Amino acid sequence: MKIQPFQSVAKKFKAVFLDSYGVIKNYGGLIDGVQGTIDFIRKENIALRILTNDASRSRTQQAEGFLKLGLKGIEKEEIITSGMMAKHFLEQKILHGKIAYLGTENSAHYILQSGLQHIAVKDIDLNNMNDVSAFVFLDDEGFDWNTDINKTINLLKHRNIPVIVANSDKLYPVSKTHVSVATGGIAQLVESILNKKFIHFGKPDSQMFMFAFEQLNLRDGFGKKDILMVGDTLHTDILGGNKFGLQTALVLSGNTDAAEAQLQINSTGIIPDFICNSIGN
Amino acid sequence: MKIQPFQSVAKKFKAVFLDSYGVIKNYGGLIDGVQGTIDFIRKENIALRILTNDASRSRTQQAEGFLKLGLKGIEKEEIITSGMMAKHFLEQKILHGKIAYLGTENSAHYILQSGLQHIAVKDIDLNNMNDVSAFVFLDDEGFDWNTDINKTINLLKHRNIPVIVANSDKLYPVSKTHVSVATGGIAQLVESILNKKFIHFGKPDSQMFMFAFEQLNLRDGFGKKDILMVGDTLHTDILGGNKFGLQTALVLSGNTDAAEAQLQINSTGIIPDFICNSIGN
Amino acid sequence: MKIQPFQSVAKKFKAVFLDSYGVIKNYGGLIDGVQGTIDFIRKENIALRILTNDASRSRTQQAEGFLKLGLKGIEKEEIITSGMMAKHFLEQKILHGKIAYLGTENSAHYILQSGLQHIAVKDIDLNNMNDVSAFVFLDDEGFDWNTDINKTINLLKHRNIPVIVANSDKLYPVSKTHVSVATGGIAQLVESILNKKFIHFGKPDSQMFMFAFEQLNLRDGFGKKDILMVGDTLHTDILGGNKFGLQTALVLSGNTDAAEAQLQINSTGIIPDFICNSIGN
Amino acid sequence: MKIQPFQSVAKKFKAVFLDSYGVIKNYGGLIDGVQGTIDFIRKENIALRILTNDASRSRTQQAEGFLKLGLKGIEKEEIITSGMMAKHFLEQKILHGKIAYLGTENSAHYILQSGLQHIAVKDIDLNNMNDVSAFVFLDDEGFDWNTDINKTINLLKHRNIPVIVANSDKLYPVSKTHVSVATGGIAQLVESILNKKFIHFGKPDSQMFMFAFEQLNLRDGFGKKDILMVGDTLHTDILGGNKFGLQTALVLSGNTDAAEAQLQINSTGIIPDFICNSIGN
Repeated sequence: MKIQPFQSVAKKFKAVFLDSYGVIKNYGGLIDGVQGTIDFIRKENIALRILTNDASRSRTQQAEGFLKLGLKGIEKEEIITSGMMAKHFLEQKILHGKIAYLGTENSAHYILQSGLQHIAVKDIDLNNMNDVSAFVFLDDEGFDWNTDINKTINLLKHRNIPVIVANSDKLYPVSKTHVSVATGGIAQLVESILNKKFIHFGKPDSQMFMFAFEQLNLRDGFGKKDILMVGDTLHTDILGGNKFGLQTALVLSGNTDAAEAQLQINSTGIIPDFICNSIGN
Repeated sequence: MKIQPFQSVAKKFKAVFLDSYGVIKNYGGLIDGVQGTIDFIRKENIALRILTNDASRSRTQQAEGFLKLGLKGIEKEEIITSGMMAKHFLEQKILHGKIAYLGTENSAHYILQSGLQHIAVKDIDLNNMNDVSAFVFLDDEGFDWNTDINKTINLLKHRNIPVIVANSDKLYPVSKTHVSVATGGIAQLVESILNKKFIHFGKPDSQMFMFAFEQLNLRDGFGKKDILMVGDTLHTDILGGNKFGLQTALVLSGNTDAAEAQLQINSTGIIPDFICNSIGN
Repeated sequence: MKIQPFQSVAKKFKAVFLDSYGVIKNYGGLIDGVQGTIDFIRKENIALRILTNDASRSRTQQAEGFLKLGLKGIEKEEIITSGMMAKHFLEQKILHGKIAYLGTENSAHYILQSGLQHIAVKDIDLNNMNDVSAFVFLDDEGFDWNTDINKTINLLKHRNIPVIVANSDKLYPVSKTHVSVATGGIAQLVESILNKKFIHFGKPDSQMFMFAFEQLNLRDGFGKKDILMVGDTLHTDILGGNKFGLQTALVLSGNTDAAEAQLQINSTGIIPDFICNSIGN
Repeated sequence: MKIQPFQSVAKKFKAVFLDSYGVIKNYGGLIDGVQGTIDFIRKENIALRILTNDASRSRTQQAEGFLKLGLKGIEKEEIITSGMMAKHFLEQKILHGKIAYLGTENSAHYILQSGLQHIAVKDIDLNNMNDVSAFVFLDDEGFDWNTDINKTINLLKHRNIPVIVANSDKLYPVSKTHVSVATGGIAQLVESILNKKFIHFGKPDSQMFMFAFEQLNLRDGFGKKDILMVGDTLHTDILGGNKFGLQTALVLSGNTDAAEAQLQINSTGIIPDFICNSIGN
């Protein structure tokens, strides 16, 4: 397993797509050396996009978040979230009624601003829910799990409506050793109890790749071979990048550690084109 | 689909095994006519056992519960719970360390009184958990779902120990139209997140049938053909009874309603020997 | 459920994407009226692409197949198959070794012509397989199921290599009432026995949509709103089209019949923009 | 991990239950030293039963099989198979119609001799199958996989009838390194394609344990504590024995090898009371 310095890999490309959690930042803050690499990317005139499975915060909030951690120079227009993809889908396909959601009010505010009314699961009256026309899993916070997961199950047992999972990640790390169930894990519990399949958004699906690619292709005429997708997770970042036709780089600063990387690459058959310790060195 | 009066079916047998929820009682209290049937069973000198997938309360508490609802004449020795089976397994196989649990203190008190220490998930220090030697899913209440399900996942991610599910039911009805996730549903979320299979107790597994059968066989020399298993759920009560070799009666007073019964019987291939509206008529 | 004549729907768009099986043809040959609709599409100057989950035959063979059935005017360049996507992925990511496959020699010939050697499972020596560097499920024919599925399991148990499923459909209809296990069904058996997840190609994944879209976008500057995806299957054609951002039309001439359509739309939440009896009327 | 000589463990008990494949014999014939241990068991007057997940051959044929391998002194009455349990269930619950099966004629002959007609899948006319009243998966041999698995799927798609899996093992070893898909693996493919759950027989379910236990308990008054279950597979032999309440011994001569045993015990939580290299030493 050949490990290469990130900057020497990146400069072969006209654009880099970065995952956020595990690549730019983690539970402890910014990953070491990230500011230097962002500066390098700017100096080399490499286009940048950040592709993150997250539906809890808007682009603006995500950009502000980087700034608060001390990372300068990320524009909100460069950030693409799975929540944006879900929002787009809802706007196209749900044209009337109320959209119910599980998540924070903030996540609802930014995703569901499409002209339709939205309503938190906790505010739904299960005896009067005929106007609910779609359901969205937005975040793992902002509600009481016991009460509101049960309410969700009862709602979806009685109303056959589109159900959207705005972030299909099942777990996220909250410290070096600990994890927490994410939106996609809660959605999966409900799917399994109801024996249904919902509509999932987020990497490895290609919408986010496509959204970023189309912007660049339109403006700069980039081809897929010009773009490097960088991520810490084989099943989302690298598989998604590979299937979309991009070159891919696995970094060892997040979900996949150095000790396990080669074994996981072999056993999943998801093969990155490059491996780097982190984008910071 | 021929529906027969319960008492005329029951009197062909020397013993009846009854499921509790959906057969004797439901969210609204006792099912109509149950006292009359219990009295009939006593008068006819038919042996009685109650087999319930429940790990939240002891036999004594279950018997008191029937009394509170107004049902007289159920002895605690006649009640067999999936919790008792889990307790027995733990006593035989977990001989040292601390047993961690998810559930109410009451459920822990009665199940884990085996000489070993027990500890609620909420009281576990994830940085000091090496003495935890087994884990039990006991109840869907008595803890904060968000905090403690996540803690359970982190505990079981780091400690490879036996995990017991003391009641494998995934859902239970809380009203005529609404359900709630049960112990087995929470366990299934954790199994799916960790990609593991735990050790499950409760019908359709045969331990409870065997426990009841051995008592009767020992005392009265009953054979399996002398016993009728009565339940409202095809996948637990009727399948378990059929595989154990008992005659079975489906009642339409709980999970399986009259409109759906024949269709479900055909599509599952789980065929009761008798069908009755309820044990009360 | 409002059913509209297909041609009146189609003429609102600059391009139509058609699924093949269940839309253009089925077990009995061409679907009634298809030639008339193809002629109408040409006359109206609507661009046409055919998107099919199939890895058994090349574009040229597919085009010849339409001609043999009596359908004129389909160009091979208008046909996009899941097999082409798998081929593209293999060419980019598998750069050495031998590619093993399950399927007909014909399917292997057209998919695996990438400079690397390919070898049928039946010709593999399980005691000498270290040079096998990838595996592809191509077709449900061309091998002995008993012998070669078992050989595949043993090969993949011992060699941790990329495994590609070139058509993820699980079943296909062989008559009005009967079905047959397809490539994706065989792959799923192997996944389940080995407890692995392979890399799947085909709708609802967006590669085929993207391939067709990029051609049209490049040449004619079409946007997604200009394109109608037409299919007989909610989970592949309509979900894939919806997630890619196209307008979608469900036809009732294949997997989804008129009696079940509304119920399936409600229960899956996969909502077509239009419903037509078939493209032929 | 303390490894003990088998005979010193066995002599603490009044009865031993042995799994067959991986314990008494394997692909290469008898396991070394087995005859000596069987003789020891007889000399010590320990009761013996053999519990095997197998529905392909009758007790008599199994006993003859041991003899052919050179093992003397096994009585056919000491052998209990999952096929016997399935046969018993069918006799009790399927009272009319024809029983269809997938397997060899031999397996059908011995299992389905219950007065009802039986018919191989290959002989079924899918246009005239209304008299088929139950279906049994008996063996992985005796039929063409491609033709007859597809026929099974079409049969079970159109007829909602009880489906029995007479041996739920998914794989069996055919050499030191190679495996083959077993009856339960084929059944699982069909379950997954049809999205149904069939009725499975075989360890870890307790019917076989109960059958053996009742014989011994009746004749000799043995309790569960007097009996040792011996097997090579944690998920069937040891889990089944543990849940039934027996003492259990894992042998390292089959599915679970010495290098992996402790890890698998920890990660599954299925804990044998004893570990031995094989019953032969």
